[in-house]
Amino acid sequence: MKHCLWALLMVLAAQTAEARIVTKTVEYQQGGTTLEGYLAYSDTVKGKRPGILVVHEWTGVGPYVKHRAEQLAAMGYVAFAADIYGKGVRPATPELAAKEAAKYRGPDRTLIRARAQAGLDQLARFPQTDPKRLAAIGYCFGGTAVLELARSGADVLGTVSFHGGLDTPNPADASRIRGKVLALAGADDPIVPPPQVAAFQQEMRNAKVDWQMNLYGGAVHSFTNPDAGNDPSKGVAYNAKADRRSWEAMKAFFAEIFGK
Amino acid sequence: MKHCLWALLMVLAAQTAEARIVTKTVEYQQGGTTLEGYLAYSDTVKGKRPGILVVHEWTGVGPYVKHRAEQLAAMGYVAFAADIYGKGVRPATPELAAKEAAKYRGPDRTLIRARAQAGLDQLARFPQTDPKRLAAIGYCFGGTAVLELARSGADVLGTVSFHGGLDTPNPADASRIRGKVLALAGADDPIVPPPQVAAFQQEMRNAKVDWQMNLYGGAVHSFTNPDAGNDPSKGVAYNAKADRRSWEAMKAFFAEIFGK
Repeated sequence: MKHCLWALLMVLAAQTAEARIVTKTVEYQQGGTTLEGYLAYSDTVKGKRPGILVVHEWTGVGPYVKHRAEQLAAMGYVAFAADIYGKGVRPATPELAAKEAAKYRGPDRTLIRARAQAGLDQLARFPQTDPKRLAAIGYCFGGTAVLELARSGADVLGTVSFHGGLDTPNPADASRIRGKVLALAGADDPIVPPPQVAAFQQEMRNAKVDWQMNLYGGAVHSFTNPDAGNDPSKGVAYNAKADRRSWEAMKAFFAEIFGK
Repeated sequence: MKHCLWALLMVLAAQTAEARIVTKTVEYQQGGTTLEGYLAYSDTVKGKRPGILVVHEWTGVGPYVKHRAEQLAAMGYVAFAADIYGKGVRPATPELAAKEAAKYRGPDRTLIRARAQAGLDQLARFPQTDPKRLAAIGYCFGGTAVLELARSGADVLGTVSFHGGLDTPNPADASRIRGKVLALAGADDPIVPPPQVAAFQQEMRNAKVDWQMNLYGGAVHSFTNPDAGNDPSKGVAYNAKADRRSWEAMKAFFAEIFGK
């Protein structure tokens, strides 16, 4: 109940001023590449507050992930939608997105980790952010990114993957995970099939991570994204129930890791 | 957030009067057998309210399940800890409990369903209960019981299994399930092993049930029961985190099924 109360107070603090969400495009660097992320916070919340890194789907930083950042800002967090791909790299078709994502999701995960870490560092630098209270969430490609960030030993209290790819070439790196992990998955997601789910669970188990996984019946890939259509037989579709439930699960997780 | 607010109001209504939880031992019948359950509700809540059936572990109705009923009463529900075994049948050792439970968990699930249904009928008869808003939860053996109740086509809005046995001789009966299903499982529970979890998921999938499953890393059987000890290597142990998280998940589920 305390979690609930805390969340309620956060929302009450923020909701009277929904128009007071400040958003800003932010340029930053990683390895000589210019990245362009999206910051959102409420200017009615006083003082430093927990910071949430948000990592985009394979299409890059766009309206969907910006909206998520704004929702988090309305809840009282500082949210930063990080850019993994680089400024201006916003693939417009699934084919281009697949090609771009493949550069990061291959057997070498060094770059995706470095880009996610650069986003986290940028988030920690904002004056509104309490750098001791950070978490990372990601969608699809972004779920993979935040899990790799966790496996790199990043200083986050928690990591949440929404229908993210759970595979990794480096399962032993799970021993470096410092925070808690919550994986939210569609039980019928063909892109995150049972063997991948089982391997992830075994990885977490072997490394004694504090992990949880919620499976949503009937949900397929991209279940949180209203733009994913409504035909689950395609393997990619929006699922309003799973969207709402997974968001509630994330909120309960944040209430636990950030305290009341 | 509305879920949260609703839950908060329920608790605020109930918590000012924690001493006002009314409890009562209740005798009722099924098939000529006298059963003895345990009713709990708050007399500070006005009018009819949702009713929660609570089904015991293999030891039968005892302090643990009574405490859960009282917790639910403090949240504003009418809770009824049903008796599957019969009045006075309270096995005192694991050997006796295993023997008693086996009478109900075999290939014929008729009796466990009938006993659970008798508890649900009794719950619906209490003047405090809104008989249109019922749910059932169960622990271990009780998880199996409430899932069988659901498979029998019982009129419940939701069913929650805490580390319950998920197997059934009648998977096709899942098509009769009328409410939503939430299975809360220890990811390392040797008594509910991966093949059983997979079969349950497939059962739910085939029947197009509205189902969810939360897996808690590091948790083994009986993870919600403080009397289960603290040595997970035994396959049965309390896990405070998984206990708290699963209870929160149940609360969110109730908020969804009972409305705000």
